[in-house]
Amino acid sequence: MARIVMKFGGTSMAGSERIRRVASIVRRQQEAGHEVAVVVSAMAGETDRLVGFCREANALYDPAEYDVVGAAGEQITAGLLALTLQSMGCKARSWLGWQLPVKTDDAYAKARIEDIQSGALLASMAAGEIAVIPGFQGLSPEGRVTTLGRGGSDTSAVAVAAAVKADRCDIYTDVDGVYTTDPRIVAKARKLKNVTYEEMLELASVGSKVLQTRSVSLAMKEKVRVQVLSSFIDDDAPAADTLPGTMIVGDDELARIQEDMEMERQLITGIAADKNEAKITLTRVADRPGAVAAVFSPLAAASINVDMIIQNIAKDKGETDVTFTVPKADLLRTQALLEEHKDAIGYYRLISDDKVAKISVVGVGMRSHAGVAATMFKALADRGINIQAISTSEIKVSVLIDQDETELAVRVLHTAYALDAE
Amino acid sequence: MARIVMKFGGTSMAGSERIRRVASIVRRQQEAGHEVAVVVSAMAGETDRLVGFCREANALYDPAEYDVVGAAGEQITAGLLALTLQSMGCKARSWLGWQLPVKTDDAYAKARIEDIQSGALLASMAAGEIAVIPGFQGLSPEGRVTTLGRGGSDTSAVAVAAAVKADRCDIYTDVDGVYTTDPRIVAKARKLKNVTYEEMLELASVGSKVLQTRSVSLAMKEKVRVQVLSSFIDDDAPAADTLPGTMIVGDDELARIQEDMEMERQLITGIAADKNEAKITLTRVADRPGAVAAVFSPLAAASINVDMIIQNIAKDKGETDVTFTVPKADLLRTQALLEEHKDAIGYYRLISDDKVAKISVVGVGMRSHAGVAATMFKALADRGINIQAISTSEIKVSVLIDQDETELAVRVLHTAYALDAE
Repeated sequence: MARIVMKFGGTSMAGSERIRRVASIVRRQQEAGHEVAVVVSAMAGETDRLVGFCREANALYDPAEYDVVGAAGEQITAGLLALTLQSMGCKARSWLGWQLPVKTDDAYAKARIEDIQSGALLASMAAGEIAVIPGFQGLSPEGRVTTLGRGGSDTSAVAVAAAVKADRCDIYTDVDGVYTTDPRIVAKARKLKNVTYEEMLELASVGSKVLQTRSVSLAMKEKVRVQVLSSFIDDDAPAADTLPGTMIVGDDELARIQEDMEMERQLITGIAADKNEAKITLTRVADRPGAVAAVFSPLAAASINVDMIIQNIAKDKGETDVTFTVPKADLLRTQALLEEHKDAIGYYRLISDDKVAKISVVGVGMRSHAGVAATMFKALADRGINIQAISTSEIKVSVLIDQDETELAVRVLHTAYALDAE
Repeated sequence: MARIVMKFGGTSMAGSERIRRVASIVRRQQEAGHEVAVVVSAMAGETDRLVGFCREANALYDPAEYDVVGAAGEQITAGLLALTLQSMGCKARSWLGWQLPVKTDDAYAKARIEDIQSGALLASMAAGEIAVIPGFQGLSPEGRVTTLGRGGSDTSAVAVAAAVKADRCDIYTDVDGVYTTDPRIVAKARKLKNVTYEEMLELASVGSKVLQTRSVSLAMKEKVRVQVLSSFIDDDAPAADTLPGTMIVGDDELARIQEDMEMERQLITGIAADKNEAKITLTRVADRPGAVAAVFSPLAAASINVDMIIQNIAKDKGETDVTFTVPKADLLRTQALLEEHKDAIGYYRLISDDKVAKISVVGVGMRSHAGVAATMFKALADRGINIQAISTSEIKVSVLIDQDETELAVRVLHTAYALDAE
């Protein structure tokens, strides 16, 4: 017997027919002898509907009241899944965020979970009752409804799994696992059996939309084993234990698994492409202490997240070009801020380019191997792909290229790192 | 300064534009210097949508989970009204059923309010914050969501008014008050300035749909002054204090008001028609002790509400005809039960008629006046309207007639009791 937390997203909960499908997946876990808790999202489209109402009511809405409205979507699906499970002969009951309670801070609309009381929940699960928990919602210190921000249900699921010390947290999505890269770009992309928390974090931060970043951080911190798998499986498919999803595990566990399977550690785990950044170049910035700070301070003050930065040292004139990237959504705001501070910074021209893509290779294996970046640069150069900027972390190398070359670059690198399926 | 509870139904809350209208009505009360709490229904159609989901999930649904789903509708409108009030510059916050809490029994889906904690609510209202409370919902002794049954928001409003010792509970509806009779039938129907709880109860029980019966009983018990008025008023209409709605008050207060205004007490307050009953006649029932009990016991056991009963004493044969009415919705079930018990009862034929109408004249004034019934019978007889059954209470006389003559009878009686407007 294991204790399992399952999480289903909005697409899986959209309508009675799909909820019935979810219920049968859940029931199979219980029939396999497991204690089961299920965390659910609102029906696809419902949160947008509710947010739309809030915007109409008050453009600058009070996040505490927004949360009262927004939390209703998950409350509805939690009740409906409990009812559906009951109709299939299972014992089931819903536990709303304020009932457990899921204690959060008071950052309404983007609250963070602080603690989940698990006593009543564990007793109910031990008595064979399937616990159905609305994701996304919690209770603030002053006793009001909070929500965790968009995509918060993944985080709810991981937090519940940590609270009940679950053996596994299964996240059912509309993909069936984590791939070496986007299978729509590379037909030979392979589904990964395992991936580490760190890799998942890097992949999420560079555009792989499988899991919400915050849920992965929490899983890493709480050492929750998270499995990503598809909710679009046949009714007669095997139970999740034997389903070929992707398991997200710690570094040590991955090493142990790979040793057990006599697998060689992969150098690179996956390749991600992110088209959501824009590039800005400021020409002829004074090459003196404080000049670069003058560029980035106003952006930081406006909470604009600067990612890659390159500074070309000028040879003689005491001037330099500064290039960096910001989220595409913040491009106009960034331009306005830089125009505003033009005199203080002292630059000649502002050149922006939103037709760029960031390509990242990610893998914990690169910690112990040199030459990962060199392989990347050579493979791209061989195909004439120009690198406009570079950034690296311990387990990631990212390059900025022309957006038109995104797919080509991903395919070239997938082959270069020998990730193609047979 | 007064303390006022306002209640708005689903039609008034259907969509952002209407919620804005409601908010401006509420704001006007606050600007008039009053402490204000608002009780809201779900958007029109929303509860039906949620109930539909529950039925699809589980035909024989668990009422506790049904309540989790059903209560979401009012949660949404409460948050939206608070947001809308804030957008107009008012301080406002929502108080969900479990937050106050509105303590109920554990009869899920048809819970009764037992107690409302008013401390935090009163403090918030005293601080100038408009309290927005979702109707229809409460908290069971075991800490789960309950709902009060359809139309329960009226009851929520009256209960909140009792808890905060409100000076008045204003129920905004899609009619602008209580009339002497249905204005669609009698063009000269007059809106009543005042009506007593007892009259309102009788009018509600015979088909006047203005207020839910349970809310009137509660108002009577708790001595809450309830005003019925229209939510479809112009933005520049006067505040509700001076709005010409109908005030529901106690017997003593009505007498005092009428004395103050040097008005003569009306004999009859209103006339209601109810087409929701069906008539059943059992012929040749044995005229012996226990025979009538044999008819009605099985119906009582099946919770079928028998209303009017007439027994024609036969002259010689030791047999009698028994006629009575039941709700039209229960007619088939009643017939089946009577067929089943035919031998035990011992009757000859069962004759049913669902083309009947019950016409009732209601008024506390009739307590002190004889001749009310006689006036009714004569007025109907003068127009050739045949009376099939009669029942009376202390403040009501009802007759059963052919349904085709409903409107004629109402008009004849409206004139006979001198209720027509000038």
